[in-house]
Parts: sequence; C-alpha cells; structure tokens
Amino acid sequence: MTVTLRSYWRSSCSWRVRIALHLKGVDFETVSVHLVRDGGEQHQPEHRSLNPMRELPVLMVDGQPVAQSMAILEYLEEVYPTPALLPIDPMERARVRQMAEVINSGIQPIQNLRVMQRLGSLFDRPKADQVQWSKEWIEFGFDGLHRLVEAHGGRYAHGDAISYADLCLIPQLYNARRFDVELSRFPRLLEVESELIEHPAFAAAHPDQQPDAVLA
Amino acid sequence: MTVTLRSYWRSSCSWRVRIALHLKGVDFETVSVHLVRDGGEQHQPEHRSLNPMRELPVLMVDGQPVAQSMAILEYLEEVYPTPALLPIDPMERARVRQMAEVINSGIQPIQNLRVMQRLGSLFDRPKADQVQWSKEWIEFGFDGLHRLVEAHGGRYAHGDAISYADLCLIPQLYNARRFDVELSRFPRLLEVESELIEHPAFAAAHPDQQPDAVLA
Repeated sequence: MTVTLRSYWRSSCSWRVRIALHLKGVDFETVSVHLVRDGGEQHQPEHRSLNPMRELPVLMVDGQPVAQSMAILEYLEEVYPTPALLPIDPMERARVRQMAEVINSGIQPIQNLRVMQRLGSLFDRPKADQVQWSKEWIEFGFDGLHRLVEAHGGRYAHGDAISYADLCLIPQLYNARRFDVELSRFPRLLEVESELIEHPAFAAAHPDQQPDAVLA
Repeated sequence: MTVTLRSYWRSSCSWRVRIALHLKGVDFETVSVHLVRDGGEQHQPEHRSLNPMRELPVLMVDGQPVAQSMAILEYLEEVYPTPALLPIDPMERARVRQMAEVINSGIQPIQNLRVMQRLGSLFDRPKADQVQWSKEWIEFGFDGLHRLVEAHGGRYAHGDAISYADLCLIPQLYNARRFDVELSRFPRLLEVESELIEHPAFAAAHPDQQPDAVLA
C-alpha cells in the first residue's frame, strides 16, 4: 500500500493526521500544498480534483483520495489498529470522539484562514477584528473542552492512553498561541501538552519538522 | 438500556441523530431544550452540566451524557449495528465519513445560530448580512458535496445504502431553504432527498413531527 499525505506545515488538520501516521508507524510521503502562495495551491485543479472542498489534508492510498481529518483518523484506526487511538468500551469511544469533535467541528472551522479572509472581504473587517474573532471562538471551545478534560482526562486528554482527543488538542493549542489566547486559563490542557511535547510521534509531526516549513 | 435524546425540533444536528435512532429502531424519549426561549435553555446549568459546549444534541444512555452528533452516530453504529449506516470496506467507510464531515465540520458550524448572533454582536452586522453569510457557506459546501455525490452517489448520497451522509444531508437541505439557497444548482442532492422524503424513519425525525415543533 502506497500512502501519501497532501499537507501544509501549519495546517492543524493535516497535523492531526501526521501524528496518527507516525504513532502507527505508517510509511508515508508528504506532498506539500501551500495554502497561501499563488492565492492558495488548494484551489488549483489538481488539488480540487482530489478534494472538491479545496482543503487539507488529503490522504492518498494507492492513488485513491480521502479527505477530512476525522474520516482519515477513523480509516487509519481500522486499517492500522495498533496502537489503538480509541478505547474499547463504546461509551468511552464516544467520549473521545466527542472531545475530538469539540475541536474538529466546534473550534477549527470557525477560526480558520478561509473564514477570517471572508470576514475581511464580505464585511470589510480589518485583520485585528479577524484575529479577535478567531481568538474568541478558540476560548469558547477551550472552556468546554477543559471541563471535559477535568472530568475524563488522566495523563492525556482522555484517560491514560493517547487518543484522537490528543491528536486534535495539540495542533489547536498551537493555533491558540498564534491568536494570543491566554492559555493559563486552561491548565489541564497545558498539562496534557507537556506530557506529549517530547513524544517522538508528536515531535515528528510538528509543523517545524515538515519539509515545507518556513522557519523565522 | 434507557435512551433519552436532548433535542430541539429545528436543530439540524439533533435531527441527524433522530434519523439514526428511528432507522435502528431504538426506543427513546425526547427532552426538548429550547434554543431560543429565555436566551436559550442550552445555557442553563442543567444542560451545561451535561454538555459544557452548550449544544445539542446530547444522548443520555442510562444517565450518561454524550454530545456531538458524529460521536453519537458512531456510538449508535457500534451498539445497534443493524441496519448498518456505514459500508464494509474501509475506504468506502472513509468516503461516507468524509461526506458527512463536509456538512458536520465544513458547513453547519459556520452557518449556525450562535455564529450568526456573534456576527451581529461583535461586528454590528444586520440580520440580512448574517443570512448572507450563512447562505454563502452552505453554497460553498454544497458545491463540494455535490461533486462527491456525483462521483460516489447512487440512489442515496453514497451508493445505494442509507449512510451517515444522508443523515447529514437531509437536515442541511432544510437549513439551506431557510437561507434561500438556490437548490436547483445541486440536482443530485435534490434527487437523494426525493428518495428519502417519505422514508418512515426520515419522516418521523422531521422537525415538524417533534413534540416541541411550532407550526405556522
């Protein structure tokens, strides 16, 4: 099986999938799709033919594309079950998916580059307002997520095993810092991050380690 | 097992779950949480203790809450596997989840009531601009989804079996009409809808059939 990930170094949704691929030891190649250059390479015909939503990531498996990070995580969990990124009990699995979806559908879609750009073009809002918008939605979502981690977390976001929830949390914390979110309000999220920061799979998946990274 | 769904008649995410419960023949009760009355009952302490994101739906299973419609659908699929709402092949399963996520994370979170209200309060945009915002994001998402249905659809959104993709599509079409989206641009989506409109489970899950429906 040949696996390729169409990815951008700073795309938080690509990052989730990179962590899973590294955790599960999947041999894969990265194809960079630059979200800003030339108006965004995700809008070019080649990429649109693979994902009509013009988004990242796209996982290519023997030439077949699949998009949407949660769909890709579930695919990887089914095809490469070890190590498991979901618990065994159905209600516990639901909790992990709930926590991941707080980020996947509750935070990231409202704070991303496309939405910020549209706030600028449709409503003529300056960059500072766009940043304020994203900051607020991250804070709102983290308020909810923090309570879930307080209730169900352990060493990691859910219990003592790495799960989808951690794969979504770590990239979202990076985005939060870009928008100056005051993270000291969310101590349990920071504790989970500190447990994972040096984990080899998480380190390998970090934006700065990607072939298309632009380092200051 | 005692199953209760905290739901609101017009909540598209609650509707997805109602369809699944009816399809799988799960015996459940509905508890209405009114998203508008008294500033929104989802903000009240009882509901927040069950879902800190203050959202619907919440499935209560023997008193244990789980939120996020996709997490609930996966839970129901695992606990009540018949009829299956996912194909067997892992790549086909990924496609169905991709299509569902186009709506779950790609459209609904950006066009919902909370986001529209915040456009009004943060940016002082009138109702007409809020509606324009939601309309555009539905159109953008449906452009992508329509291509996926053209490529992978059959009698239903994915192939010839009812799947998560249909459970997400039907409520999103209802939202689209509320925002005056020109649906003739998306003929394949309307074809799928016409196949499902009289299906007993879809009919029973329709907003107008809910105990808290307000009919004109």
